[in-house]
Amino acid sequence: MHAGRVFTLTASCPDRVGIIARVSGFIAGYNGWILESNYHSEYPEECPDNWRGRYFMRMEIKADSLPFSLDEFRERFRRIAEELEMNWEISDSAVKKRLVILVGKQEHCLYDLLARWKSGDLDVEIPCVISNHEIFRDFVEWHGIPFFYAPIAPGDKKTGWNNVRRLLEEAQGDAIVLARYMQILPSGVCERFHGRILNIHHSFLPSFIGAKPYHQAFRRGVKLIGATCHYVTSELDLGPIIEQDVIRINHSDSVEDLVRYGKDIEKTVLARALRYHLEDRVLLHGNKTVVFR
Amino acid sequence: MHAGRVFTLTASCPDRVGIIARVSGFIAGYNGWILESNYHSEYPEECPDNWRGRYFMRMEIKADSLPFSLDEFRERFRRIAEELEMNWEISDSAVKKRLVILVGKQEHCLYDLLARWKSGDLDVEIPCVISNHEIFRDFVEWHGIPFFYAPIAPGDKKTGWNNVRRLLEEAQGDAIVLARYMQILPSGVCERFHGRILNIHHSFLPSFIGAKPYHQAFRRGVKLIGATCHYVTSELDLGPIIEQDVIRINHSDSVEDLVRYGKDIEKTVLARALRYHLEDRVLLHGNKTVVFR
Amino acid sequence: MHAGRVFTLTASCPDRVGIIARVSGFIAGYNGWILESNYHSEYPEECPDNWRGRYFMRMEIKADSLPFSLDEFRERFRRIAEELEMNWEISDSAVKKRLVILVGKQEHCLYDLLARWKSGDLDVEIPCVISNHEIFRDFVEWHGIPFFYAPIAPGDKKTGWNNVRRLLEEAQGDAIVLARYMQILPSGVCERFHGRILNIHHSFLPSFIGAKPYHQAFRRGVKLIGATCHYVTSELDLGPIIEQDVIRINHSDSVEDLVRYGKDIEKTVLARALRYHLEDRVLLHGNKTVVFR
Amino acid sequence: MHAGRVFTLTASCPDRVGIIARVSGFIAGYNGWILESNYHSEYPEECPDNWRGRYFMRMEIKADSLPFSLDEFRERFRRIAEELEMNWEISDSAVKKRLVILVGKQEHCLYDLLARWKSGDLDVEIPCVISNHEIFRDFVEWHGIPFFYAPIAPGDKKTGWNNVRRLLEEAQGDAIVLARYMQILPSGVCERFHGRILNIHHSFLPSFIGAKPYHQAFRRGVKLIGATCHYVTSELDLGPIIEQDVIRINHSDSVEDLVRYGKDIEKTVLARALRYHLEDRVLLHGNKTVVFR
Repeated sequence: MHAGRVFTLTASCPDRVGIIARVSGFIAGYNGWILESNYHSEYPEECPDNWRGRYFMRMEIKADSLPFSLDEFRERFRRIAEELEMNWEISDSAVKKRLVILVGKQEHCLYDLLARWKSGDLDVEIPCVISNHEIFRDFVEWHGIPFFYAPIAPGDKKTGWNNVRRLLEEAQGDAIVLARYMQILPSGVCERFHGRILNIHHSFLPSFIGAKPYHQAFRRGVKLIGATCHYVTSELDLGPIIEQDVIRINHSDSVEDLVRYGKDIEKTVLARALRYHLEDRVLLHGNKTVVFR
Repeated sequence: MHAGRVFTLTASCPDRVGIIARVSGFIAGYNGWILESNYHSEYPEECPDNWRGRYFMRMEIKADSLPFSLDEFRERFRRIAEELEMNWEISDSAVKKRLVILVGKQEHCLYDLLARWKSGDLDVEIPCVISNHEIFRDFVEWHGIPFFYAPIAPGDKKTGWNNVRRLLEEAQGDAIVLARYMQILPSGVCERFHGRILNIHHSFLPSFIGAKPYHQAFRRGVKLIGATCHYVTSELDLGPIIEQDVIRINHSDSVEDLVRYGKDIEKTVLARALRYHLEDRVLLHGNKTVVFR
Repeated sequence: MHAGRVFTLTASCPDRVGIIARVSGFIAGYNGWILESNYHSEYPEECPDNWRGRYFMRMEIKADSLPFSLDEFRERFRRIAEELEMNWEISDSAVKKRLVILVGKQEHCLYDLLARWKSGDLDVEIPCVISNHEIFRDFVEWHGIPFFYAPIAPGDKKTGWNNVRRLLEEAQGDAIVLARYMQILPSGVCERFHGRILNIHHSFLPSFIGAKPYHQAFRRGVKLIGATCHYVTSELDLGPIIEQDVIRINHSDSVEDLVRYGKDIEKTVLARALRYHLEDRVLLHGNKTVVFR
Repeated sequence: MHAGRVFTLTASCPDRVGIIARVSGFIAGYNGWILESNYHSEYPEECPDNWRGRYFMRMEIKADSLPFSLDEFRERFRRIAEELEMNWEISDSAVKKRLVILVGKQEHCLYDLLARWKSGDLDVEIPCVISNHEIFRDFVEWHGIPFFYAPIAPGDKKTGWNNVRRLLEEAQGDAIVLARYMQILPSGVCERFHGRILNIHHSFLPSFIGAKPYHQAFRRGVKLIGATCHYVTSELDLGPIIEQDVIRINHSDSVEDLVRYGKDIEKTVLARALRYHLEDRVLLHGNKTVVFR
C-alpha cells in the first residue's frame, strides 16, 4: 500500500515477447513512476513447446509523476492495448471505491466490515446496507449509512429480487458483498454484476457444497474446517475462489463449536478477499483467479 | 460446550496417587454426571525418579444430576480439598460472568467483543466499558452498556488511576480486558485484580517487548508477526501467556501493513483467550498457564 | 510422553454416571499412578434431554506403581469392563510396537519414517518394508531392515495380493502404513487388518477424492492444498480421518509445485497420525476418530 | 518453476524512474522471453516526499529465446547496469548449483535434504558432506556423496577450522548449509562465504537466542514454537532471516516433545529457504532479505 495518489493499471492479454517492455516503456516515456508491479503468465497444464499462454499484469503508478490526467492516459494507452489485444482497466485512488453490503441475520461479518470502515482501514464509501431483515437497521444507521429493508417473500420472490436489483443498480457498488446473506441470488443478478459480487461460504470449498456445511464437516470427522470467499456466478458455490483459510478442530468440538470457530475464519477471509478486490489485485481467468498480493 | 446448567470445578494440588479416584468418586457418590474432565500433571524439567509434581484438573458436572446446591457442594467437598491440599474453585453456569472492557482509541478489539456479545456467542454481562477517551461513548451506549470516561491526566495520574480502580471495584468483573488500552496499569491495580486482567499485546512474546512492536518486527525482517494474550502482572509484558497466534508477512509489507494484519490476529487471540478464561479453562502455575481446551 | 514403563488403557462404552470413578477407583485401589488421562463423551447431533452417548477414555498408568503384571491387570479389570459394557485394550510400553511400511516409487514418506526411526523418535520395530518396486531395496537394507519385493502383476493381481497378505500376516504389524503405496488394497485385506492400516492421501479430504488430486486442485483454483491420513476401509478414501493439514499456494504455482509442496504436508501428517496411532491415542467411533493428544 | 533452460537475472539499484523499462526494453530488443519477473522497492520507514529507496528485481528469461550466450549477455548488459548503479548477477539453469552440507549428530535435516536430492526435487550437485562426527559417513557414502570427517578439537580449534575452511574452498558451494551443525563458525569463515551460509536455528527468532531455545520456550510458557533459517553472519543468530515457521504446542508438552515437534519445523523451514536461495530468489538488503517467491 502506498501513500499518495496512484493509478492502478490491470490487464491481461495473450502472452508474447516484449509486453513488459512495451507497457513500462510507455510509462517511462512520460516519466511515470511505477511504485509496484506484478506479472504472471498462465499456461495450459500440459503445453507443447511453442505454447501460448495468457499474460496478467498489475501496475501502481504514482499519479503526480505523469504529465496528464487519467482520461488522457486512457486515450494514449488505448493504441498499445489494442496492439497487445488486452483486456484492461485503470483506476484512480482519489476516487473512493463503493461497497454495498447484503446481510441476513448474523452479525459477525457486518460488524467486522463496519469496524474496519470506521477505523479507516477499509477506505471506501458504503452507499447502503441491504437486508431481508430489519434487525440491523439501527446499528447500520447509527454509523450514518443508509439501510434498506428488502424482503424476499417466499410467495413472490420475483418482486423481492426486482427490488434488490433496483437497489444494486442505484448503489453502483464496485464490490457487492454477501455478508452471510443466506439467499441464493437469481442468475440474472449474478450475470448483471459479474465479477463484482463476493460471497463468503462457510466451508473449505470444494468440500461441503450447499446447506449446513458445518454439520457435514462434523459428520465426516474432518480435523480442520474452513471458509472460502469467491465470486458469485450462477452456479451455486462454484465461482472463482479469491481466498480461503482453515482452523483446527478436534473430536471434542460440537457442531455449535464449529459454527462459532467458523465465524472467525469467515470474517477474516472475507475481509482479506474484499481488500484484494478493492485494490484491483484480483484478475479473473476463467473459473480461477490471479491474486497479486 | 454443553447445553444445560453446569457446575465447573477447577483445582490444583500436589500430585499423588488417587486424586481422580477421590474426586470422581465423591461426585459419583451423589450420582453426579461428569460432562467433561481434564487433567494435567506438571513436573520439574529435570526431575528425579521420585519427583512430586503439581496436579491440575477441571470438571464440568451436570448441575441437575446432583441432589444439592452449589453451596452444599462447597460444604461437602471442602474436606476432600483440604485432605488433598487443593486450591480450588467451582462456578455455576447459571450465574453469568461479568466482563469489564478498558479501551483506548482503537476500535478493532472493542467492535469484535461487542459483536460476539450481541450474537450471544460471548454470553456475559458487561457492567461497563471504561476509556481514557470519549470516542466510543455513543457506540457503547447504543448497545445499552454503560460507558465511563476515565482520563489519566499526565500531570495527575494518581487521581486518574484511583478513579479507574474505584470503577473496577464497583464493576466486579470476572474478566477485565485491556482491549488495546495502551496504558500501563500501576502495580497496585495489577495485584488487586491478579489473574483477572487480560491484555492483548501486539507481538509474539517474548519477541518485541515494549513500545512499537510492529516497527521492531519490520526492522528485524521477521517473516511472521503475532499477538499474545497474557495475564497482566506488575512486570510489563511478562505475565503468564494464555494464547498466541501469528500471521505470515513478506518484504513487500510496510509497517502500516503489519499494523493492519496484526489487528486481525489481536482480536482473534484476545477473543479465544477470553473464552478460555470465562469458561474456567485457564489455571495459573507460576508464570505459566495450563489451558484445558 | 512419559519416561519409564507405562500401561496404556483405552476403552469406550455407553455413557453413564460414574465411569471415571469406577475405573480410577479400581486403579487407585491398587495404588496405581495415573500419569495422563483423557475422556470424551460423544452424543448424537440432535439429542433429547435423556440422551445416551458413548464414552471414550485413555489412561497412562505407571507400570511399576501396580503390584501385578499386565495379565493380572487384564484378569482383574475384566469384571468392571463387562459391567460397563466396554470395548477395551491395554498395552505395555515395554513391548515395542511393530510397524510395516508399504511403499511405491516415491521416497519422501519412506525417508521421513526411517529418519525418525533411526533417531529413536519413532521407537518401533520395523519387521519389514514391502514394495511393488525394487527401487528402495538397497536403502532399506542399508538400515538393516528386511525388504520384500511383492509385485502386483496387472494380469494376475490375485497372486500378488495373496503374497502381500501373507507377508502382512507374518509381519504382525500394529501399524501398516501405506507410504504413498499407490495401490488400492482389496477389501479382504482392508477388513482383515481393520483399524491398523494407515494411508496418506494427497488431498484435503473430502475434497478431490480419487486420482490426481493435485491436478484437480489446480483446476479448481483453490488457495490451500492439503493431505489427510486416514484408516483404510474398503471404501476408497472414505475411511476415518486421523489427521489433516494444509499449505498455502497461489496462482503462480504449477501442478508440479503443488506436488512438491504437497510432499512436505504428506510426510508430516503421516508421521503425526502414526504417532497417535502407535501411542494408542486414536479410538474409532464409526467413521470418525477420537484422537487424545 | 519453469521447464527448459533459463537465465535468472537478479539486481538491486537506487530507485528511479524507468528501471523496468530500461531492463525489459534491453531484453525485448533481443527478442528475449521473460518467463517470470518480480520487483520491489524498499524505502525508509519514515520517508520524505522525495525519498529515494532501493529497487530490487529478479527476472527469469528463456535462454533459447536470446540470440547469444550468457557471457555475451553479461557483456552487453554491463553498460545498463553501470548506468543504473546496479549490483547484479545472472545465473544459468544449465549449470547445476553446488550444495555443501555441514552436519552434527542429528539426522533429521540431513535425511530430509538427501531425500529431496534423491527424488530430484532438490536438483543440485552435492560435492560433499562435512561433519565433526563420523556417525553419518556410511549413510552419506551410500548415496554416492563424499563425506569428510573434520573434527573441531576443543584444544586446537584453529587447526579444525582451517581444515573446514579448506574443504569449503575446494567444494565451491553456492549454498553451505548448517544442518544442525551445532558449532559456531569463526567470523573469518562467516565473512569469506558471506551470503552463502544458511543456518537453521531452532527457535522463532528473535525469541530465545543462543543455547537450548526449546528449554527457554518451555520455561516462558509460549503457545507456539518455531524455527528460523537465516544467513550466517559473525553476530550469532542475528543474520538476515530468510524463512520462519511455527507450530502450536500446549501445557501438556514436555521439553522433549518440543524438541521433537521442532524438528519437523526445522527441516521444512530449512528446505524452503534453501530452495529460495538456490533459485536466486533471495536478495540481501542490509540485515533483511527480499524473497521473491
